[in-house]
Amino acid sequence: MVMPDFPDFNEATIAGIATPPGAGGIGIIRVSGPQSYAILQHLFHPKNLQHNFISHRLYFGAIVHPETGLAIDEVLAVYMRGPLTYTREEVVEIHGHGSHLLLQEILALIVTFPATRLAEPGEFTKRAFLNGRIDLTQAEAVAELLGAKTREGATLAMSQLRGGLHEEIWKIRDALVAVRAIMEVAIDFPDEDVEILDPQPLMARLDREVQEPLTQLLARAEGGKIIREGVSAVILGRPNVGKSSLLNCLLREERAIVTAIPGTTRDTIEECLDIQGVPVRIIDTAGIRETVEAVEEMGIRRARQKLGEADLVLLVLDGAEGLQAEDRALFAVAADKKVVVVVNKIDRAPDLDIGLYGEVFPGLPVVGISATTGQGIHALEEALYEAATGGHVLQEPGVAAPNVRHTAALQRALGAVQQVGVGLAAGLPPDLLAIDLQGALSFLGDIIGETTTDDVLDMIFAEFCLGK
Amino acid sequence: MVMPDFPDFNEATIAGIATPPGAGGIGIIRVSGPQSYAILQHLFHPKNLQHNFISHRLYFGAIVHPETGLAIDEVLAVYMRGPLTYTREEVVEIHGHGSHLLLQEILALIVTFPATRLAEPGEFTKRAFLNGRIDLTQAEAVAELLGAKTREGATLAMSQLRGGLHEEIWKIRDALVAVRAIMEVAIDFPDEDVEILDPQPLMARLDREVQEPLTQLLARAEGGKIIREGVSAVILGRPNVGKSSLLNCLLREERAIVTAIPGTTRDTIEECLDIQGVPVRIIDTAGIRETVEAVEEMGIRRARQKLGEADLVLLVLDGAEGLQAEDRALFAVAADKKVVVVVNKIDRAPDLDIGLYGEVFPGLPVVGISATTGQGIHALEEALYEAATGGHVLQEPGVAAPNVRHTAALQRALGAVQQVGVGLAAGLPPDLLAIDLQGALSFLGDIIGETTTDDVLDMIFAEFCLGK
Repeated sequence: MVMPDFPDFNEATIAGIATPPGAGGIGIIRVSGPQSYAILQHLFHPKNLQHNFISHRLYFGAIVHPETGLAIDEVLAVYMRGPLTYTREEVVEIHGHGSHLLLQEILALIVTFPATRLAEPGEFTKRAFLNGRIDLTQAEAVAELLGAKTREGATLAMSQLRGGLHEEIWKIRDALVAVRAIMEVAIDFPDEDVEILDPQPLMARLDREVQEPLTQLLARAEGGKIIREGVSAVILGRPNVGKSSLLNCLLREERAIVTAIPGTTRDTIEECLDIQGVPVRIIDTAGIRETVEAVEEMGIRRARQKLGEADLVLLVLDGAEGLQAEDRALFAVAADKKVVVVVNKIDRAPDLDIGLYGEVFPGLPVVGISATTGQGIHALEEALYEAATGGHVLQEPGVAAPNVRHTAALQRALGAVQQVGVGLAAGLPPDLLAIDLQGALSFLGDIIGETTTDDVLDMIFAEFCLGK
Repeated sequence: MVMPDFPDFNEATIAGIATPPGAGGIGIIRVSGPQSYAILQHLFHPKNLQHNFISHRLYFGAIVHPETGLAIDEVLAVYMRGPLTYTREEVVEIHGHGSHLLLQEILALIVTFPATRLAEPGEFTKRAFLNGRIDLTQAEAVAELLGAKTREGATLAMSQLRGGLHEEIWKIRDALVAVRAIMEVAIDFPDEDVEILDPQPLMARLDREVQEPLTQLLARAEGGKIIREGVSAVILGRPNVGKSSLLNCLLREERAIVTAIPGTTRDTIEECLDIQGVPVRIIDTAGIRETVEAVEEMGIRRARQKLGEADLVLLVLDGAEGLQAEDRALFAVAADKKVVVVVNKIDRAPDLDIGLYGEVFPGLPVVGISATTGQGIHALEEALYEAATGGHVLQEPGVAAPNVRHTAALQRALGAVQQVGVGLAAGLPPDLLAIDLQGALSFLGDIIGETTTDDVLDMIFAEFCLGK
């Protein structure tokens, strides 16, 4: 077996199935690490034999069981020589027919190799980060890309993956490093009483090159959060007000494909709407979809339970029946959430004055709809969008936005820089100022992964799926 | 745009997502047809620019939206020059980060190309067949491979994909062609009263080279059917006899990963056991898993409904309670199916004589188990295997077996060849014999896809998933 030289020979070779389970035309096993090439040579029988695999070239052949001699699958296989690979290590990919069963069998053979084991979730991307191909914001972007529920979410992640955030933070970091250099001169040569620590220009520089861009970045956080996480909503209403029809109507209208996400128990199913780019998860659609929902079951207690995690409540009323005491009771339960009042069945109540509901629920958005005819659904989507975004402007495509982790670090960095400003104004000695400056640099370093601790890294990569 | 010359320029270019939806590390779009190369050049911006893509080489770069100029995804892309491709046409693959949302966006861009459209299910494999890379049995094997529920099923499909069936049938076909040539000489030169139609050696030859191999092939059909389709089973029993525990126990014991297959309604879930290579689908596990199952609901009517499609019934009895009238009533409903009697809770009835149950249910397999301790589960698996296979020996690995469609054609071919034998013995004229001989050839031609009609082809390829 030819073993290509590789700097990191002591590191374990990792392998995983990189395609999701399910019926598909192609299934991929990804291998990364020093044993990759040897594994390929041992298990893969190319149809046209040659001595060495050319890097990045796909070869047709079969994966043959080394003991039985039987072909497990006909595959395309590729060897990719580091460092021009996903992980910067030696990488091998095996592209089979898409049977998860066969992929598992091949994977089981691969991990019998010495110094080879199953990859942990996110471990390929983690190696790309540890080997310096991408920074931590880019690694996070990979997970976000896979989890994105709307096109806007994917675009946001892609901007970050392309280095959007990385560049901005790097630029701020450079400015801080420049200021620190000035400080250090002042520390090293305290007696040379030049105007190097003239606070005015330094403060102006910090303001222009650090605080301002930090503030701008932070201003984008909320919009990014909405696109990333969206909101969770509950459809609340008495039996037979048309909750199920409303859900179906929204699912039909929305542009993206509906994904039914099984909840933790068999009885809860979430469905995700794409409301103008904002993912709106409808919680407990299983309950909504029950065709007959006994009134006694739909008590206040149950409503309260359903509301637990929700950001948003769609309170559905029956426009043809008028407001009932039970409607008011349900509203009372939901009053501390963002509520959108949906008056359904307006097709059956042509003389209905929607404005009256506005008086009953002052300050709340009220939308008249007919889930049967679809009337008013677009206005409802607008109201949902308004309620979900809270008036925040969403990110324009191509611009990255900090996530929760970045935001916390950015705020700390901003705080530290503000301390530097205060200290400068107060004429504090440079060695004291340097401490806050170093703090700010360290917070920025956390974001890009320069100074991030192992447990934070573990937490970040645990979010990944297998094979990534 | 460089347009490589390709014989089949008028054919539509097809594109599809070749990886299943879900969280995965890599998602693939496959494109096949004359436009493939142009599509790649238009949408893909390789990081290291060059004039032409080298065939079968993976390039890193980005898919860029031609209007917004924004990167949709960072990808590896490969152009594969025909005919050394899956379809024998020009093929392009785009390997993205695995976000189905982005794959859909890229796919939507691709199909805006002239003479380009979404691929139908199985259309890539259909083109591989129509372009002569594989025969019809091999195309069917691809679908079987993807649908295989056990390793044995996948191995069987792989033998067929590697040409196992194809070769055997081709050999029989050659023998028939040779016999037909002799017939044709006899037809063309009827007056040359040579012994060319001496029936004895011809009959011996037909017997040895055609009937015997056909009979051998047919003998493998049942074993193949069991591995392919498995059996469906229902777990039947009074409330609280331990149906749910039994299912959990079997699911834990079996070696393969459990797949929960959603039924047609939300309330039915099938789970598939791998019993020594035989897929055993447990129908209506949702019902079994109800923790509290009211006796009145579990009436005879419901039991009858559940039994509808089942091949096999696991009648679960409570060994600690002894046989009840309701047990007998349930058995009466199931009596026309294959029944395995499972006496549960034997850990709570140490003095139980299982043999007594054998007297109550004569001729039926009776297994005492404890779903709590796991005692007897292996014996139960043996009994299930026996009941599922009906004593048939399963296919040894590496040997293909005809499927239902092949079996029907093989039987017809055998019938036609037997007619030729009868005719030869009766001294019928060669032009009459040639009709049956041609019939036999045509039936074999159906199997490998030489003479298969379009609607049969459509039916076969409709079984495929998208992207294959």
